[in-house]
Amino acid sequence: MADGTIGVGMLGYAFMGKAHSRAFREAAALHPPVVPRLVSISGRTAEKVEAARVEHGWAEATTDWREQVADERIGLFDNGGPNDLHAEPTIAAARAGKHVFCEKPLGRTAAESLEIWRAAAEAGIVHMCGFNYRFVPAVRLAREILEAGDLGELFHFRARYLQSWGVDAPPSWRFDRAAAGSGALGDLGAHIVDLGRYLIGEPVAVSAVVKTFVDGHEVDDTFAATVEFESGVVGTLEASRLATGRINHNTFEVNGSRGALSFDVERLNELQVAEGKWFRRVLVTEPEHPFMRFWWPPGHIVGWGDTFTHEIHHLLEAIAGEHDVAPHGATFEDGYRCAEVCDAIVRSAESGRRETIEYRERSE
Amino acid sequence: MADGTIGVGMLGYAFMGKAHSRAFREAAALHPPVVPRLVSISGRTAEKVEAARVEHGWAEATTDWREQVADERIGLFDNGGPNDLHAEPTIAAARAGKHVFCEKPLGRTAAESLEIWRAAAEAGIVHMCGFNYRFVPAVRLAREILEAGDLGELFHFRARYLQSWGVDAPPSWRFDRAAAGSGALGDLGAHIVDLGRYLIGEPVAVSAVVKTFVDGHEVDDTFAATVEFESGVVGTLEASRLATGRINHNTFEVNGSRGALSFDVERLNELQVAEGKWFRRVLVTEPEHPFMRFWWPPGHIVGWGDTFTHEIHHLLEAIAGEHDVAPHGATFEDGYRCAEVCDAIVRSAESGRRETIEYRERSE
Amino acid sequence: MADGTIGVGMLGYAFMGKAHSRAFREAAALHPPVVPRLVSISGRTAEKVEAARVEHGWAEATTDWREQVADERIGLFDNGGPNDLHAEPTIAAARAGKHVFCEKPLGRTAAESLEIWRAAAEAGIVHMCGFNYRFVPAVRLAREILEAGDLGELFHFRARYLQSWGVDAPPSWRFDRAAAGSGALGDLGAHIVDLGRYLIGEPVAVSAVVKTFVDGHEVDDTFAATVEFESGVVGTLEASRLATGRINHNTFEVNGSRGALSFDVERLNELQVAEGKWFRRVLVTEPEHPFMRFWWPPGHIVGWGDTFTHEIHHLLEAIAGEHDVAPHGATFEDGYRCAEVCDAIVRSAESGRRETIEYRERSE
Amino acid sequence: MADGTIGVGMLGYAFMGKAHSRAFREAAALHPPVVPRLVSISGRTAEKVEAARVEHGWAEATTDWREQVADERIGLFDNGGPNDLHAEPTIAAARAGKHVFCEKPLGRTAAESLEIWRAAAEAGIVHMCGFNYRFVPAVRLAREILEAGDLGELFHFRARYLQSWGVDAPPSWRFDRAAAGSGALGDLGAHIVDLGRYLIGEPVAVSAVVKTFVDGHEVDDTFAATVEFESGVVGTLEASRLATGRINHNTFEVNGSRGALSFDVERLNELQVAEGKWFRRVLVTEPEHPFMRFWWPPGHIVGWGDTFTHEIHHLLEAIAGEHDVAPHGATFEDGYRCAEVCDAIVRSAESGRRETIEYRERSE
Repeated sequence: MADGTIGVGMLGYAFMGKAHSRAFREAAALHPPVVPRLVSISGRTAEKVEAARVEHGWAEATTDWREQVADERIGLFDNGGPNDLHAEPTIAAARAGKHVFCEKPLGRTAAESLEIWRAAAEAGIVHMCGFNYRFVPAVRLAREILEAGDLGELFHFRARYLQSWGVDAPPSWRFDRAAAGSGALGDLGAHIVDLGRYLIGEPVAVSAVVKTFVDGHEVDDTFAATVEFESGVVGTLEASRLATGRINHNTFEVNGSRGALSFDVERLNELQVAEGKWFRRVLVTEPEHPFMRFWWPPGHIVGWGDTFTHEIHHLLEAIAGEHDVAPHGATFEDGYRCAEVCDAIVRSAESGRRETIEYRERSE
Repeated sequence: MADGTIGVGMLGYAFMGKAHSRAFREAAALHPPVVPRLVSISGRTAEKVEAARVEHGWAEATTDWREQVADERIGLFDNGGPNDLHAEPTIAAARAGKHVFCEKPLGRTAAESLEIWRAAAEAGIVHMCGFNYRFVPAVRLAREILEAGDLGELFHFRARYLQSWGVDAPPSWRFDRAAAGSGALGDLGAHIVDLGRYLIGEPVAVSAVVKTFVDGHEVDDTFAATVEFESGVVGTLEASRLATGRINHNTFEVNGSRGALSFDVERLNELQVAEGKWFRRVLVTEPEHPFMRFWWPPGHIVGWGDTFTHEIHHLLEAIAGEHDVAPHGATFEDGYRCAEVCDAIVRSAESGRRETIEYRERSE
Repeated sequence: MADGTIGVGMLGYAFMGKAHSRAFREAAALHPPVVPRLVSISGRTAEKVEAARVEHGWAEATTDWREQVADERIGLFDNGGPNDLHAEPTIAAARAGKHVFCEKPLGRTAAESLEIWRAAAEAGIVHMCGFNYRFVPAVRLAREILEAGDLGELFHFRARYLQSWGVDAPPSWRFDRAAAGSGALGDLGAHIVDLGRYLIGEPVAVSAVVKTFVDGHEVDDTFAATVEFESGVVGTLEASRLATGRINHNTFEVNGSRGALSFDVERLNELQVAEGKWFRRVLVTEPEHPFMRFWWPPGHIVGWGDTFTHEIHHLLEAIAGEHDVAPHGATFEDGYRCAEVCDAIVRSAESGRRETIEYRERSE
Repeated sequence: MADGTIGVGMLGYAFMGKAHSRAFREAAALHPPVVPRLVSISGRTAEKVEAARVEHGWAEATTDWREQVADERIGLFDNGGPNDLHAEPTIAAARAGKHVFCEKPLGRTAAESLEIWRAAAEAGIVHMCGFNYRFVPAVRLAREILEAGDLGELFHFRARYLQSWGVDAPPSWRFDRAAAGSGALGDLGAHIVDLGRYLIGEPVAVSAVVKTFVDGHEVDDTFAATVEFESGVVGTLEASRLATGRINHNTFEVNGSRGALSFDVERLNELQVAEGKWFRRVLVTEPEHPFMRFWWPPGHIVGWGDTFTHEIHHLLEAIAGEHDVAPHGATFEDGYRCAEVCDAIVRSAESGRRETIEYRERSE
């Protein structure tokens, strides 16, 4: 970093590998305080990782992430691999003194997530968990409105993340318990739990039903939960991979005594804002709106991929010391706390009880 | 009824009294097999009931519903009074051999509802509970699509009934436990529970949180619940009187293996139908659509009040023996079963457990 | 009227006959200052008019509207017949001293409309032309917002009335030049011209294209026009019976220096209002909203048929001397002025020129 | 190009300069058959062009576009400058044998556009005019649906491009006649004219009104036109910079005998498709949808800036000889023909007549 750059090593080359690669390239073009260099990409299969290297513009490819952990040129380790490869490489990289960026869910369980967080915190490096929806301009705007207290006393948070591809999906690690840990819960539910935490605060209790409909799936296809927050806000959380008619319907609503917010990722440039009785459709592309300094005149929308650009730019600023990852980025602590909520959802589904959520401290 | 007419006596003159009065008048103009005559209206306060008599076109007014029960001119007793006046007058009228129409919720509890149902069933008269949303053309169309099996195996039902007037409402019997029994649960929640039963089948378990936010309210302002149906369908039920930004947002979504449905009462002439991947916005005003034989050429929408016209026309056909009230109208059995679900929601909120729902038989 | 009632004679028993009959019944129930009595209905075919009499609740039926004109019991003549039966009966009724209500378009041409207006005005009776969309609550609210000057200097008015039934319609008088005068222009276009006049002011010039696509149709299937108003506002007017995907898409938008309005009849309880940068979706069902004194608590929508109830209630108030028909109802002068705009559209389509519109006075 | 790369020189560094720079970078990462190298950027003001060079990642900066024209390292000249700088540099670059990409409108008038087209055609190089909306996935899908004939006989095309920033905009070359040529017409109207040509075919006649509302503006703030196409399709074209409530509302609708399409740039990942009676909301993000091979799993939307990536990737393929720029990209012939339509709109506004459009050939 003496030269204002940082070497990046990335694990994973599928969906997230593609999204992260593009985001490093794009974030670099936005003149961050530390400029990423794409040193190496790793993955299990030599042929595929080499193809990904070429496709996504990395200098080198390897089938052994340990080489990346040992590589002195690498200052930032980006883990976009499958869920069962989150803990070991991320912890190893952190212990090797590298900054770490890990996709969500952080671990497959709260226990695993706690271990990752603690290792990263002890290592003293910068850590960020990949909750990219915090970097949607409309979501950041929602947070600003909530922080300003414009909605008065908050009553409700309800969120749904509905997709439908699970109805006739081919086999994948995503349906395998050992590899994925969970299904819709970790894949989709983790996102809305994190948004709830980002926007409202800490969940303290959930009651849930979790269900697998499709033969051959080892993990949940869907869950539904009631949720109570520390502040008294109540609502629901739902996710499904079987919600036909919905493609990527990640949506939330907040109602307070003086107004309300409503959002849907399929229209990610829009935020419905009620300050007073009626919802206004705000197109979050005005110059004063979050992240718009990077983009275009009003009305020219950004895409889903651009949320990763914002996220990685934010991480690079944190690495440069311009601000902390938190509160606008999710740290590994956020990744762990999210996992506690997901675990409580599973426990409640099994026990048939409302489960309270206890968060452990870093150094308990 | 020898002359093809039936005398009607109505209890109540507020919101429901107005809606029912208009619906009797309008249904009469649709040439039902039995034509209603508006014999008398009753209510507690002499002055107000006389004003309502004039306003809504009833022949006589009385402050004593017992007079109506004893009135031989009256063949149909319509109970649109407050919830604590549902049981006694409705049972008395049924026992006097009158057909009975009672607004929802049938009773304030499942026990009270069961008592009303049993009395009506024993009396052998026609009974209907006022779940008017079954008579929205789009809801009937949804039922037809589901009955035809067009959506394949059903996975999800999620419904919300969100209003916001509770945030700054003046005092009312609706916030009083003795008079209302419950708040958002009986007022709004009962409607979506009934829609769930009409469209999907019997709920068998719920986990819920129920909450009162506003000082001075004795009843719930809101509840949220997960729900499991006998058929395996899972989802959520939510209602609130504090959901700012929402006025009368009574909405449901069904997802099955081959398609989905989505509906909102604020746009009650529209049904979103996905047969295949994409939602189509169907304007439920085509000649072949339910109830449209009563109305206009395509695209000329009906109003909320017209659902009562459909409902009362349906009741009059049932009284004439053309069909049973069920399955398209809600009987008192439906009113009772809905109350069991509502009671289970309250129990679950108190116990912190998933509560299973047991339905009692008429003659246990 | 000595007894506070007025006898009504109606010509026509098709779509408009049904809508008007219901509206008289419903308006009567709203306690207007003069209560309508449905004296007689007339139509060409004895069998059909008798069936309509029974269906719509009229006391007598006749095949000769002249009997109605001569009937002393009738104080209000309502002409809902085909366009070629607007002039003669309406004029005769007015000259016989009856108040007259005539469906739109007033005449088939401006000349015919002018003749009707002049006859009615000379007779000194109350006259109203059936532009029922002025009686949509959201349209009246739009007028109130515009009158208050909330949108600043007005720039644009653009309106479309799009339907699709003409693509495969069976033969009808509506496609016949002699009977209908015009097609989409008089049927649909007249409505949006009237809305433009009601909301913005007088059109002074149009440039248009008018077209018949379907073999066998004698009248226009569609037209499109640019329009300039006296105040300087510019925009477009379009109507079509061949606009697939659209059922009853009667929509307008107004843009001014400080805000904008947008409306669609398919969602007739909603008005999009931008006071400032963003559109708010206003559900026009609040107690303070136009006509809502007749209806329900917020969020419970009215239907298309109810606009006729508002319209006839307004007419009855005018007959009772409580206010003039104008400005909120359309007089025959409005019917005539609308026809001048429609004629100019036809002239422009034929001449290929921008046609200026000259309005004649009543007593020129 | 011996090494599979091509040097690019760009004129302009404002809105379009930023969009093009990003698109070259992004297109390069998609592994086009010819990879762009960002050789130099030019602009009037030395300080600003140097800042833009750094910001947008160009190797060199110059204040003299003639240096670029003379630069042998440059094989592609990209003109994103103001409208009065389109003709001379573009023609010079073409004559110097460089491929040319010029932003729309091609020239300020049809005559100027014709000159540019002829020069480019004579030079035998690849030329493309910057109508980026052809590269919106939903627009390409619309074209595919139309080409397949799925909508039957076409009746209507109506398009609007509405923005509102002109109401209180600071002074700019965009309001200056000499620099811009026209206002809303060339800036916004050109886009919808091009979409009409791409989707429907050649316009043959227009009737228009053009208007400047704001003091100090030399160019049009708005226009409205009726349009007739060679195929018989009729409709309207409108653009405004004063359409409050609208931010970047570039929208079109096509109606045919068997279905319809509707689109809005503010929701650029959606296409409303009616094949049959009802509109389906298609989220144009499925693997088989246009351009989606470059992107993400379904439901993860692309942004406005990405349309330029598609456009430049298309141009690079054309330069590599993989396909022609036409029909999916706009050539300079398209730029010229669009200008004829725009000129006819101006003529019609001045003459008050329907103006027919004559297209000149390249070698007349």
